[in-house]
Amino acid sequence: MITEKFPSRLLENAVNEFAKLPGIGRKTALRLVLHLLKQEKSEVELFGHSLIQLRNEIKHCQICHNISDVDTCNICSNPNRHPEEVCVVENIKDVMAIENTQQFSGLYHVLGGIISPMDGIGPSDLEINSLIERVKSGTVKEVVLALSTTMEGDTTNFFIYKKLKELDVKISTLARGVSIGDELEYADEITLGRSIKNRLDFESTLSQ
Amino acid sequence: MITEKFPSRLLENAVNEFAKLPGIGRKTALRLVLHLLKQEKSEVELFGHSLIQLRNEIKHCQICHNISDVDTCNICSNPNRHPEEVCVVENIKDVMAIENTQQFSGLYHVLGGIISPMDGIGPSDLEINSLIERVKSGTVKEVVLALSTTMEGDTTNFFIYKKLKELDVKISTLARGVSIGDELEYADEITLGRSIKNRLDFESTLSQ
Repeated sequence: MITEKFPSRLLENAVNEFAKLPGIGRKTALRLVLHLLKQEKSEVELFGHSLIQLRNEIKHCQICHNISDVDTCNICSNPNRHPEEVCVVENIKDVMAIENTQQFSGLYHVLGGIISPMDGIGPSDLEINSLIERVKSGTVKEVVLALSTTMEGDTTNFFIYKKLKELDVKISTLARGVSIGDELEYADEITLGRSIKNRLDFESTLSQ
Repeated sequence: MITEKFPSRLLENAVNEFAKLPGIGRKTALRLVLHLLKQEKSEVELFGHSLIQLRNEIKHCQICHNISDVDTCNICSNPNRHPEEVCVVENIKDVMAIENTQQFSGLYHVLGGIISPMDGIGPSDLEINSLIERVKSGTVKEVVLALSTTMEGDTTNFFIYKKLKELDVKISTLARGVSIGDELEYADEITLGRSIKNRLDFESTLSQ
């Protein structure tokens, strides 16, 4: 066990700062700091400044609220994307995951979280009103709800659905079913049940 | 899988910098960076500057070569420590581990690594010559070799032993044996063998 007897206040400060990060314990923090001490001064300055610059200069896209360097992100400002389809996601990681599939050419709306009473996050903490305004403004024809398939995700989906159903917009959600590559015997019952209930015309799957 | 399609260059830079750290993959790096984005600007500045300041201002103690904020570290400059006992360790983590036992009141000599031909580390890359000079200068009566009980540690111990044996200094090393709390049937053969060979007078262990 390594205790708190640091031979240097500078070292201790840096370890304390690293240990504030989620999933980084004090032992890992010390290992990372000692690694940085072996790097060139210029490398460490680059590291430190990249974090400070990020925090000070980052913006959120005024349309989709995703993290961006500019006022309108490069997805929202891309003329080849279809502004009539809007995919609602929790955060930037989901945007990146969906972009990675190359199967969606619409725009996004990043909520910044999901409704979670346990964590004190209600609808007003999220970008839900701005979504309603965006739909009311007219361009959007379809809203794809793409939140996690958890209790909180389903709650948020349903909350948004209730707000949108009076408006003239199609509301869809991600297909749920057996993962590609899954063996049926290991698929969970609920997922398998939904896969059978929402079964697809076989021919429609041939071209995918 | 999250790929490299970052919506922001600032975000990408910060993730790249984090991902250079040992044991931090790109996915963890993104998670840490998104965590920092949620913190106050002043918090992130504190984090960044603590690393830059550490790297720019850290010193090595001119006597023991341990990491220090000042020219002579607070162990070497402590008048209650015994300068005639010098414990040779690989790095600062070992100093902290031994300090934590509160069983050693001498000074240290931090080699900065161990001899490891596989990693291209030879005797001249370590603080071995400064150790010899330190012993030659006269105050040191006992050198305690406290390196890891690995092949590289044993090699380094033996290299230092050969350099020191002509000098008028006692050379000792850490006792090897069964760990406190170990069940004998699970102790490895070599350790158990050494424990029997180097068995201790029972009465001498009663006061420990």
